[in-house]
Amino acid sequence: MVASLRLPSLTSLLFPATTRRYPAALRRRVLCLRNRPASGFATAPSTGTASPEVQRLRSDQAVTPRSQDFNAWYLDVIASAELADYGPVRGTMVIRPYGYAIWEAIQDYLNVKFKETGHSNMYFPQFIPYSFIEKEASHVEGFSPELALVTVGGGHELEEKLVVRPTSETIVNHMFTQWINSYRDLPLMINQWANVTRWEMRTKPFIRTLEFLWQEGHTAHATPEEAEREAKQMIEIYTRFAFEQTSIPVIAGRKSKLETFAGADTTYTIEAMMGDRKALQAGTSHNLGQNFSRAFGTQFQDENGERQHVWQTSWAVSTRFVGGIIMTHGDDTGLMLPPKIAPIQVVIVPIWKKDTEKTQVLSAASSVKEVLQTAGVRVKLDDTTERTAGWKFNFWEMKGVPIRIEIGPRDVSSNCVVVSRRDIPGKAGKVFGISMESSALVAYVKEKLDEIQSSLLEKAILFRDSNIVDVNSYEELKVAISSGKWARGPWSASDSDEQRVKEETGATIRCFPFEQPQGSKTCLMTGNPAEEVAIFAKSY
Amino acid sequence: MVASLRLPSLTSLLFPATTRRYPAALRRRVLCLRNRPASGFATAPSTGTASPEVQRLRSDQAVTPRSQDFNAWYLDVIASAELADYGPVRGTMVIRPYGYAIWEAIQDYLNVKFKETGHSNMYFPQFIPYSFIEKEASHVEGFSPELALVTVGGGHELEEKLVVRPTSETIVNHMFTQWINSYRDLPLMINQWANVTRWEMRTKPFIRTLEFLWQEGHTAHATPEEAEREAKQMIEIYTRFAFEQTSIPVIAGRKSKLETFAGADTTYTIEAMMGDRKALQAGTSHNLGQNFSRAFGTQFQDENGERQHVWQTSWAVSTRFVGGIIMTHGDDTGLMLPPKIAPIQVVIVPIWKKDTEKTQVLSAASSVKEVLQTAGVRVKLDDTTERTAGWKFNFWEMKGVPIRIEIGPRDVSSNCVVVSRRDIPGKAGKVFGISMESSALVAYVKEKLDEIQSSLLEKAILFRDSNIVDVNSYEELKVAISSGKWARGPWSASDSDEQRVKEETGATIRCFPFEQPQGSKTCLMTGNPAEEVAIFAKSY
Repeated sequence: MVASLRLPSLTSLLFPATTRRYPAALRRRVLCLRNRPASGFATAPSTGTASPEVQRLRSDQAVTPRSQDFNAWYLDVIASAELADYGPVRGTMVIRPYGYAIWEAIQDYLNVKFKETGHSNMYFPQFIPYSFIEKEASHVEGFSPELALVTVGGGHELEEKLVVRPTSETIVNHMFTQWINSYRDLPLMINQWANVTRWEMRTKPFIRTLEFLWQEGHTAHATPEEAEREAKQMIEIYTRFAFEQTSIPVIAGRKSKLETFAGADTTYTIEAMMGDRKALQAGTSHNLGQNFSRAFGTQFQDENGERQHVWQTSWAVSTRFVGGIIMTHGDDTGLMLPPKIAPIQVVIVPIWKKDTEKTQVLSAASSVKEVLQTAGVRVKLDDTTERTAGWKFNFWEMKGVPIRIEIGPRDVSSNCVVVSRRDIPGKAGKVFGISMESSALVAYVKEKLDEIQSSLLEKAILFRDSNIVDVNSYEELKVAISSGKWARGPWSASDSDEQRVKEETGATIRCFPFEQPQGSKTCLMTGNPAEEVAIFAKSY
Repeated sequence: MVASLRLPSLTSLLFPATTRRYPAALRRRVLCLRNRPASGFATAPSTGTASPEVQRLRSDQAVTPRSQDFNAWYLDVIASAELADYGPVRGTMVIRPYGYAIWEAIQDYLNVKFKETGHSNMYFPQFIPYSFIEKEASHVEGFSPELALVTVGGGHELEEKLVVRPTSETIVNHMFTQWINSYRDLPLMINQWANVTRWEMRTKPFIRTLEFLWQEGHTAHATPEEAEREAKQMIEIYTRFAFEQTSIPVIAGRKSKLETFAGADTTYTIEAMMGDRKALQAGTSHNLGQNFSRAFGTQFQDENGERQHVWQTSWAVSTRFVGGIIMTHGDDTGLMLPPKIAPIQVVIVPIWKKDTEKTQVLSAASSVKEVLQTAGVRVKLDDTTERTAGWKFNFWEMKGVPIRIEIGPRDVSSNCVVVSRRDIPGKAGKVFGISMESSALVAYVKEKLDEIQSSLLEKAILFRDSNIVDVNSYEELKVAISSGKWARGPWSASDSDEQRVKEETGATIRCFPFEQPQGSKTCLMTGNPAEEVAIFAKSY
C-alpha cells in the first residue's frame, strides 16, 4: 500500500535466517527441558541445570527442526521461547511470563464471551470430600485413578481424606442444592477460572500436566432442551474462539459413548489437528442431563409446584490450548503466533554501525513504538546493545512474533521502515520502504496483522483437509491411520468394535462432526446403515 | 447541579427504610451461614439448609443490626448479600458471583499497577516438595503447623509428601536458581494470581479461610537497596489502592520483629480499622534479604564476575480485602460499597401502580440504563414484577449499591428521576427532579459516585482517628485497649515486653507507622529513649 521500492539494506543481507546462534544461557535452558524425563513416577525434586559437558554437546543449535523430530522440537520451542519449565514435582509445569501472556489473551476473550452470554464468575474450594466423588457412579470410575489426596491438615490425620479437585461437578452440585429452590432460581449459570489436578502418568508441558489451569462453566436449567441449547452454545463459542483468535480450524462434533465425559449424557468437543497430524481435544462441553442432580438431589419446584431435578451442563478450556497453538502453527524456526493472541505483535529492531547513527536510529525506533502502542498494537522495542541485529532477528522469529520492523540509518533518512512477516520466511515476507508517517504505518501494520491471522488459518485449513481421508472400509481406515492421517467414515458399529479399532490402530473416534455429508451411508465396519460419519485419529 | 425542586413522590413515602422484609429463600440463606460453626475441626460435609423450625425463629429480620452484634451482622451481610457461602470442608468458602465481582475489581486495578511497574504474571505449581519448606529455618517454623499435605497420588502412596502451597517463596527460589545466571537477568519481577492453603483453626469468611485467593509478587535484585525500594514501592501501591479504590484509610508501616513474615528481614504492612475497631492486616510487602537465596543457592554473577546471592522481596493482597471492605463501610442496613469497586454502581427501580403506567415507566427506565451503561457506569435495571418497589429498595440497600435511581409515572412526565445515595440514609440522601437528559444525568451520576467515594473515605478517616489514642505509659495503653481503641505510643522495648503486652491486653504491635510524630520520645514501657511510635491493637 505504501511500499515504495528500495534496495535491501546491508543489514538484511548480513544476517541470513540460517545462522542461528543463541547465548549459553538460552542453550542451557533448552537442555533443561529436553534432558528431564517427560514421564516416570517420582516426586523427588529435580537436580537443576544440566552439566556444562551436556550443554556443549548441543552448542551448535537451539531448536531441533520440527521436520526432524516433532516432539523434540516441541520441547525445544517451549524452552527456547521461555513459555514454560518443569516444576520440581514430576509432571508439574511452571508457566513462564511469555506462555502465561498467551493464556491471559485466551482468558480475556473468553471471559467477555461468557459474561455476554449471562454467566457469572465465582470460586469453589478446591478440596472436595472424598465421599462426594463416589456419589455419581461413572464419575468416580472415570476420575478415581487420577486423584491427588490430602490426608494430613495442620499436623493431624484427617477424618475424611480430601480430593484436590480434578473437576468441580460434585462440589458445584452440593452448593447448587442450597441455592436452587424454585424455577425462579433457574437458569443458574456460573464459571470459574481455577487450577485442577489430575495424577497423569504420561505428562507433556501444556498438553497433559499433573496440575493445569482452566475455566469450568457449570449451569443448571429447568428443561432438558435448555441444557442442550446451552451445551451447544458453549461449544460454538469455543469453535469461534479457535477459528477467529487462534487460527486453529477445529472440527466440532459429538463424542462417541466411549469417549464421553465421566458423568455426562453427551459430550461435545472441538478437535484440532496438530503439525504431526495427531488430534488434540481442545475444548469440551457436556450435557450432564440429570446425572449429577439425581446423585446430589439438586431439585427445584417447577411452575406447577412439583419438585424436579435440574438439567445441567459443564464446559471447559484449559492451558492445553497453548500447546495446541504451538503445535498448529510452529515451524522449523520455532514458534509462530497468531497476532490476536500474540503477547508481542510487533518487535522493532533498530540497526546501526557507527555511534553517530545510533542516536537518530533509536529516536526513530522509539517514535515508531510510541505510534503503534498508541494505536493499540502490542509492540516491543528491542534496543539492547548486547546483541547484534542478526541475533535479535533470530530470537524474535523463534519467539513467534508476527511482525518485525527494522529501522536502519538509511530508513531514517528516507523516513521509512522495513517490515518482515514471521509467516513468510526470507525475502518474500519482507517489504522495504514502508512510510514511518503515523497513520500510514498504523494502517499498514494493522492490515498485515489481519492478513497474517487469516493466512495462518487458511494454511491450517489446507493442512487439515489434505490430511483427512474419507474411508469406507476398515481396511481403508487402517491405511489412513498408519500413514499418519485422520480417517473419516460412516460409523454405526458397537462400542466393542470401536475398542477394537483403538487396540488395532491406536486411533479413537475423535468425534461425529456436526457437519455431515449428505446421502445414505453404510457403516465402514459392519456394512449396516449408518446415520453419521465419524472421525478417527491418533491423539494426544 | 441539575436538581430542580420537586415534592417527594408518593412512592418515596410509601416505603420507609425501616420496613425490611425479605423472602423466605433469603432468610434461609442467612440462617445457613449463621448456624454453621465458624470454628471446630471436622472435615465432614455439612448437612445443608437449616430446618424450617429454625428458619421461622428469625423470620422477622434478615440482617442483625451492626450496632447490636458485629460478628452476627458480618455473617448476615455475607449471606444476605450473597457474597459467599461455606464450603463442605470445614473452614473453606465458596465465593459467590457478587463477592467474586468485588475481587475481580481488585484484580483489575492491581494487575494494571503491577504491569506498569514492570512485573509479569506467571504461574507456579501449587504442589511443593516437603523438603523445600524445611530449607529456610524460620519459614518452616512459621508454616509447618498450617500445612495441608498430599500423601497419595494416582492411587499410590507418594515417596515424598507434597505441601499444598501456603505461599510460594520456596518453589519460586527453586526456579529462580535456573533462570538467574548473570546480573543481566536481574531484576526478575513476577507475580501470580493463585489459591493458597493454610490449615487455620479459627476461620471466618474472607478474613481467614483454609483456602483463599491472592496475588503473590516475587522479585530478585542485584542489590539490597533495590530490593528495599521494591518492597517499599509495593506497599505504597497497596496503600494507594486502599485509599483511592476502597476508601479504606489504612495505616502503612513496618512490622515489629515478632510480627515479621517467617523468612523476611522486614515486613511492611497496611493496617485497617474495622467497624468494631479491631485491626485488619490488609496487605504485606516483605524485604526477604538473602534468606531464601542463601537457603536455595539463588546466585548471580555480578559485573565483576563474582557470584552473589540475590536480594528478594515478596508481597501479597488476598480475598481478605473483601472482608475489610465489608467491615469498614457496612452499617445496620447491610453492605455499603465504595463506587469504584462496586459490581453495581447504580440500580434503577421503576415504579408503577396501574398497568397503563408500566410501559412508559419501563421504557424510560431502559433508556436511562442505556445512557448510563454507554457512559461506562455499571448499572442494573431491576424490572422484575415479583417484588414491590419497597422490597427492591431494601434489597439493593442491603447489597450496598451506592446509588439508586427511582423512576415513577410522575418522573416520566417531568422527564426527571429521583436519585438516592446509599451512604446518606433516608430523605437527606434523596434528590428529586434530576433531569433525564443524557449528558446532564451522566454528569450528575458520575459526580455523585465520586462524592460517595470521597465521603466514605472521609467518614472512615474520622472514625479511625477518633479511635486512636496517644499513650505514654503501659497503663494508658491498657486503658485504651480495654476501651476497644488503638493505642499509639513510643516503643523501644524488648520482644518479651511486646509478648507480655499481647498476653495481658490481647493487643499486638500492628506496625511502626511510616508517618512518625516529630520530637524526642520515651518508650512507654521502659522509659528508655525510643525512636518511633508503634500502634497497638487487637486484630483479626
